[in-house]
Amino acid sequence: MTPIQLQQFIIEFFNHHMPFNNLLGLRASYTENLDAEIRLSWQDNLMGNPVHKILHGGVTAAVLDTVGSIAALLAGTVHLDSIEAVKEYYDQLANGGTLDMRVDYLRPGRGAEFIASAKVIRRGKKVAVCRMDLHNDSGLHIATGTATYMS
Amino acid sequence: MTPIQLQQFIIEFFNHHMPFNNLLGLRASYTENLDAEIRLSWQDNLMGNPVHKILHGGVTAAVLDTVGSIAALLAGTVHLDSIEAVKEYYDQLANGGTLDMRVDYLRPGRGAEFIASAKVIRRGKKVAVCRMDLHNDSGLHIATGTATYMS
Amino acid sequence: MTPIQLQQFIIEFFNHHMPFNNLLGLRASYTENLDAEIRLSWQDNLMGNPVHKILHGGVTAAVLDTVGSIAALLAGTVHLDSIEAVKEYYDQLANGGTLDMRVDYLRPGRGAEFIASAKVIRRGKKVAVCRMDLHNDSGLHIATGTATYMS
Amino acid sequence: MTPIQLQQFIIEFFNHHMPFNNLLGLRASYTENLDAEIRLSWQDNLMGNPVHKILHGGVTAAVLDTVGSIAALLAGTVHLDSIEAVKEYYDQLANGGTLDMRVDYLRPGRGAEFIASAKVIRRGKKVAVCRMDLHNDSGLHIATGTATYMS
Repeated sequence: MTPIQLQQFIIEFFNHHMPFNNLLGLRASYTENLDAEIRLSWQDNLMGNPVHKILHGGVTAAVLDTVGSIAALLAGTVHLDSIEAVKEYYDQLANGGTLDMRVDYLRPGRGAEFIASAKVIRRGKKVAVCRMDLHNDSGLHIATGTATYMS
Repeated sequence: MTPIQLQQFIIEFFNHHMPFNNLLGLRASYTENLDAEIRLSWQDNLMGNPVHKILHGGVTAAVLDTVGSIAALLAGTVHLDSIEAVKEYYDQLANGGTLDMRVDYLRPGRGAEFIASAKVIRRGKKVAVCRMDLHNDSGLHIATGTATYMS
Repeated sequence: MTPIQLQQFIIEFFNHHMPFNNLLGLRASYTENLDAEIRLSWQDNLMGNPVHKILHGGVTAAVLDTVGSIAALLAGTVHLDSIEAVKEYYDQLANGGTLDMRVDYLRPGRGAEFIASAKVIRRGKKVAVCRMDLHNDSGLHIATGTATYMS
Repeated sequence: MTPIQLQQFIIEFFNHHMPFNNLLGLRASYTENLDAEIRLSWQDNLMGNPVHKILHGGVTAAVLDTVGSIAALLAGTVHLDSIEAVKEYYDQLANGGTLDMRVDYLRPGRGAEFIASAKVIRRGKKVAVCRMDLHNDSGLHIATGTATYMS
């Protein structure tokens, strides 16, 4: 397995093998620079407040946590310089997780589609810190977050 | 509408009129002391990591945000001392929301049932701060959080 | 008092009338765009860990909280469109404050000088959310934070 | 060195060898149960807002970070079951640190004395999560926080 195959496996895993991501309808992707992105279409059953027809804060939190998690995992593949290192990283994938996260709800979650992006601020050997943002399809900044991931 | 009817309306609203709460299967209740509680049964489609069969971090975040939100709203009913004050509070219910939340993931989210509880640390005129906890049915402490709510 | 005089008063207040800012040696300034900045020179008595000779995490937190607070206050001056509005804002200045803050410690706080900057992510009527960063004089990213301010 | 001597060394280190703790006038102690406590007397130069004569938010953050850090370090001494384990822990002491912290400012920091306490919510091999509280000498709850520490 090459680092690129590992990256593709990570995205595939988030898109097809995590049941709650499928329930939400998350679609993850990434660029050559390993920037992670998740797209999510509006569904009525993701509503929190039905008076204002906006996303439930838990959906926002779930999307931000997930996109940050992908970014942290992808960033960890950059320095894998041998087949053994790739294999070891692959074997440990399922053992990582979110240590903690802060979410700031900036504006009501309205839109036809939502785009979450993540930036790795620090990637250490065991711990990564990511900053995540959620915008709607009009470019409105709906939420921001910061999370610490253990790998 | 009396304060008690308002409290019952709030719980009813969270249990029956917020689509994402229904998707998750959240069941909210409260005690005479206005302590809020949410129960959630395991469902396979709430899984994040299928290797370890644990709750998706977004489910944990959603449940903590929701139980804190209920506790904050209930606490705000305590000092409503006239029919007009109750009515005004009722009219404003849908305009409040979560400003920000921190979630700490302490242990893997395994269990047949999960119990979320919330405690109001501070209730000001416009802003409430709550501390929330998630345990499983064996009493294991799975996650904790703190959130600030605007009303 | 004009909005510009009010902005200058805010900076002056943080630089000369807040005792703990003086104890730390904070020097606040701002640009035409109302971007806030604080500079802080190394002093041995700001050390936490003397083995590694790095800033105490509390100093980092204090600087981030302060620069975010200035940015939030300056952003609030933008829409003051009458002498009365300026006066009212001035009269309320001391009543605002930090609701909550998250700090992420990214790298050891080493350097001869430290530069803190802040960006207002959202400015509502009562609540502002800011993102803050601390770099050293070599451009190393030492810490980041997010805070919610009430005004 | 026994575990008890190591615990005493940790407290001694925070009380006498961290310059910024001395500048603030922090006095750390701990109980047999390894609960950590810090006391801090009012000093005019710890003021933020001189209009209301209250503690600077940075002082609150510094005290909470410090008391949580002590609690995390003490909790790590519990399972050291050999002289070698104690020595290894001692050698690594200076390499740990705060990963991230949330502070909630609940009430104005007024008082003659302040008492900070910390509770370890989770202590893993490398990471500890603590909850910290600050009260004044009248028992008023001034601030609360949560922090993640790496050791």
